[in-house]
Amino acid sequence: MHPSALILIADGTEEMEFTITYDTLVRAGVATTSAFVPEQDTPSSESPPFAKGSRGINIMPDQYLNHDCGPDRYDLLVVPGGAKGADTMSKQPSVQQLVRDYYDKKMVGMICAGSLAALRSGLPRQPLTSHPSVRKDLEKGMSCRRVSNDFDYSEEPVVVSGNLVTSRGPGTAFPFALTLVEQLCGADKRAQVQKPMVFPPGTPF
Amino acid sequence: MHPSALILIADGTEEMEFTITYDTLVRAGVATTSAFVPEQDTPSSESPPFAKGSRGINIMPDQYLNHDCGPDRYDLLVVPGGAKGADTMSKQPSVQQLVRDYYDKKMVGMICAGSLAALRSGLPRQPLTSHPSVRKDLEKGMSCRRVSNDFDYSEEPVVVSGNLVTSRGPGTAFPFALTLVEQLCGADKRAQVQKPMVFPPGTPF
Repeated sequence: MHPSALILIADGTEEMEFTITYDTLVRAGVATTSAFVPEQDTPSSESPPFAKGSRGINIMPDQYLNHDCGPDRYDLLVVPGGAKGADTMSKQPSVQQLVRDYYDKKMVGMICAGSLAALRSGLPRQPLTSHPSVRKDLEKGMSCRRVSNDFDYSEEPVVVSGNLVTSRGPGTAFPFALTLVEQLCGADKRAQVQKPMVFPPGTPF
Repeated sequence: MHPSALILIADGTEEMEFTITYDTLVRAGVATTSAFVPEQDTPSSESPPFAKGSRGINIMPDQYLNHDCGPDRYDLLVVPGGAKGADTMSKQPSVQQLVRDYYDKKMVGMICAGSLAALRSGLPRQPLTSHPSVRKDLEKGMSCRRVSNDFDYSEEPVVVSGNLVTSRGPGTAFPFALTLVEQLCGADKRAQVQKPMVFPPGTPF
């Protein structure tokens, strides 16, 4: 059976980080679903609206975030960046609970400002990276009531810390996505997916 | 006045190549518009449908391709890849005419299978690259009635040949997009856009 992944999307999501991760997982045969996170945590059974990307690309999510999005249903949860989208996601109690559940039982990936979800969900102190613009929040945890929630900040393009995989920005989205493929499907599948993407000679991943 | 760009999109467009190019141009301040190319060359004044990306991401185009899409209106035309989407675009006479017009008067970029548009639009023989899967078509021009339409095939990640900029695949979409930024806005703007994307140390562009 193929692994599966749930990728969150909201207004203000960085569309390159979302698209590179989704597309690369699909290329690996991962059953991938996007779930829209509205700004207000209101459940809805209707079809979701477009997500308005951070640079103006409108993407149609596969579904709303709903009660059937837990780690019993998918093997991986991904929180993409984009300042506004990551803020919407990481502040919602339902997303925070999902992040804790995937961290405990399966795997969770965060990239760029998406790494704020590790702080706001109260994940334990561990190695992590993010976009440089939110580094201070993650090192100090000053904006969080639980001071113990700071992290061992790394500048590596991708940081794998047990069930938590973090990365830095659009420029690291390919190695982030390929690392998720490797974690879910193995190194052979990663190599098989990477080759026809035709990265430039000398690419450091 | 800011430069402007028109990016084509169709069912089967490679969504990473489309999104990386669009997003990067927007980050550079380029006024960027996506235009949907339907499979049949039928003009329409209605809103376009979703473009169904090659890996299942549905993207809402900004508009249909219409009669106000020429080089008097935009400074750059981009033809992204994805086998089915590039086939739809490059076979349409209206797109072929646009490609010739932008090549003559402004600039045209093609990536991956999008480079087939150079062949099918009858651009003159010159240096060019593409996804390896369509290399033979471009080297030999065998599928084209005009045998003189072959190209000086290159394996460089990005090839700038006068007004024609070509590239290879999703893995070269960032240097492709950044090269387009440099051509339109200069090297300083390229550097300014590239830095906050946080490419891994050692990235060869």
